[in-house]
Amino acid sequence: MNRQIILASRPSGLPTNQNFDLIEVDERAPRNGEVLCKTIYLSLDPYMRGRMNEAKSYAKPVTLGDVMEGEAVSQVIKSKSDKFQVGDFVMGRTGWQDKPTAHARLFKKIDPNKAPISTSIGILGMPGVTAYTGMINIAKPQRDETLVVAAASGAVGSTVGQIGKIFGCKVIGITGTSEKCAYVTNQLGFDVCLDHRSQNFETDLRSACQNGIDIYWENVGGKVFDAVLPLLNDFSRVPVCGLISRYNTTDLPDGPDRLPLLFRYALTKRLLIRGFIVFDFEDQRTEALNQLQTWIKEGKMRYKEDFIDGIENAPKAFLGLLSGKNFGKLIVRVSDDPTL
Amino acid sequence: MNRQIILASRPSGLPTNQNFDLIEVDERAPRNGEVLCKTIYLSLDPYMRGRMNEAKSYAKPVTLGDVMEGEAVSQVIKSKSDKFQVGDFVMGRTGWQDKPTAHARLFKKIDPNKAPISTSIGILGMPGVTAYTGMINIAKPQRDETLVVAAASGAVGSTVGQIGKIFGCKVIGITGTSEKCAYVTNQLGFDVCLDHRSQNFETDLRSACQNGIDIYWENVGGKVFDAVLPLLNDFSRVPVCGLISRYNTTDLPDGPDRLPLLFRYALTKRLLIRGFIVFDFEDQRTEALNQLQTWIKEGKMRYKEDFIDGIENAPKAFLGLLSGKNFGKLIVRVSDDPTL
Repeated sequence: MNRQIILASRPSGLPTNQNFDLIEVDERAPRNGEVLCKTIYLSLDPYMRGRMNEAKSYAKPVTLGDVMEGEAVSQVIKSKSDKFQVGDFVMGRTGWQDKPTAHARLFKKIDPNKAPISTSIGILGMPGVTAYTGMINIAKPQRDETLVVAAASGAVGSTVGQIGKIFGCKVIGITGTSEKCAYVTNQLGFDVCLDHRSQNFETDLRSACQNGIDIYWENVGGKVFDAVLPLLNDFSRVPVCGLISRYNTTDLPDGPDRLPLLFRYALTKRLLIRGFIVFDFEDQRTEALNQLQTWIKEGKMRYKEDFIDGIENAPKAFLGLLSGKNFGKLIVRVSDDPTL
Repeated sequence: MNRQIILASRPSGLPTNQNFDLIEVDERAPRNGEVLCKTIYLSLDPYMRGRMNEAKSYAKPVTLGDVMEGEAVSQVIKSKSDKFQVGDFVMGRTGWQDKPTAHARLFKKIDPNKAPISTSIGILGMPGVTAYTGMINIAKPQRDETLVVAAASGAVGSTVGQIGKIFGCKVIGITGTSEKCAYVTNQLGFDVCLDHRSQNFETDLRSACQNGIDIYWENVGGKVFDAVLPLLNDFSRVPVCGLISRYNTTDLPDGPDRLPLLFRYALTKRLLIRGFIVFDFEDQRTEALNQLQTWIKEGKMRYKEDFIDGIENAPKAFLGLLSGKNFGKLIVRVSDDPTL
């Protein structure tokens, strides 16, 4: 049987368990060119919240009743493709299910001898490539600049900040707990980490950014951005990678309307604000993965994975992700990792 | 005597004639390295409104009692510099006065045989270089893209749109009168021009942009941007060059607060929003001027100058500029042009 988590209903505001259903369907035997896989690791990522809405974001929404989307690491158990043999490890957008059948062209092969296979949905997957390409193409960090990164202990933020350190920036992380802050400074080597839930967050940020902010990596929006805006330096860059604080909101905040204020800042401070998605830099994927792997080998890049067991727990873990309950890259261990 | 327009008081909101004073002071004989000039053409530009405020924008404000800032074309009448001889034509930031004395290093020599000397504060000066560098570095126009440019008959906007046509874009101008619209389409060759004062402006813009908007050149802000925002395509670029509709406002508009909405657009549509000032691309000035001059010679680039006579009329003309009363590049003819 293939256990699937499907989108049962669309949330208005904060999603709940009721928006998901766990169903069991028959495994589907692979046709010519297809493979049947056993899911080992399912990636949970904030962008999935957008897929639950009816409106098109940068990608189509998940259709009601369809399997929730997502990347996963799997092992091939039946193959009707020349590309993969039984036993191969693969990564693909197979979604929240434990026995997916799909065309071989939708998978990339993973070499389990190069790195733990779980990293291909984390530091050596979408989040890592997102961080690398956004930094290289948009943030363009320079020595001694100040980089502020929101959601700093998360899959993307932790990588962004470490890249900033490698490029010689002063790096200030922002997280939601003191435990995460300690990890970010002690383990990842950020210069400072601030808790956005602190009463003194705004003052703390100003104190930490004595020379203003040259790069603000936007993962969250909301009050973190509000504290950042007045500190942005001339010619600062704001890669817009995520807005997790806003994903569950249905209304805009009360006024005044600060859109003209933002444009005034943009003009007088010569800001660069640019949204992007990892797919926009698909041609740099190999470069990104090679560089990240090198940095990991050199001990310059660390990562933290937060495992949850059982596909039935994916909805709950995803809801926790939206409120910052995860600590590191959130991964559902759907079945045992045979490489360990 | 040297007649000067000084900043008498700072405006709150819309400036009035009372914010300026016309005074007469003695001409100052040049010291070593200096020249005394006779102003021929004074440039009036929207950015000067920012200099009247107390707060620092991207440049220092004009001090109360000081001569209003601005670029001018002049002729040297006394020289204590090896760089310039009496009779030379020069361009410099000498401000709103008719007999400035300043150090020679503050001036650039103008060759009256190359182009009308007035163009060195217009199409072959700050506005032209602004348009060229913003297009090349930020807008990056591609064949068949749709470019919308606000303040389309103005010094910058008219050049932006013509560059768009040279690069093969569909160009939609926005102005404030039907006369200006006719000029923009008939004389400058824009595909469409819309009057933002029309009741149907939003609908007209949507109809004109059947394929959405790839480049929006922001000169004005306010309701023009509001109409543009929902039409922006994926990967569209918004060079922020000016915000004239907001220069006289003291408060932000009522809510809701659309700043989060803008960031959502930025993320999902992968927008690039970037403020800039002509000085940011100073190293491309020569390239810009050469290219603009070539296009003028080839008949691909036209320009329109709107002359006002007498430095005493500069304040009134400037107030008119802020409400769109000018038609083309606004220039005060301070004294007769001896090259004509």
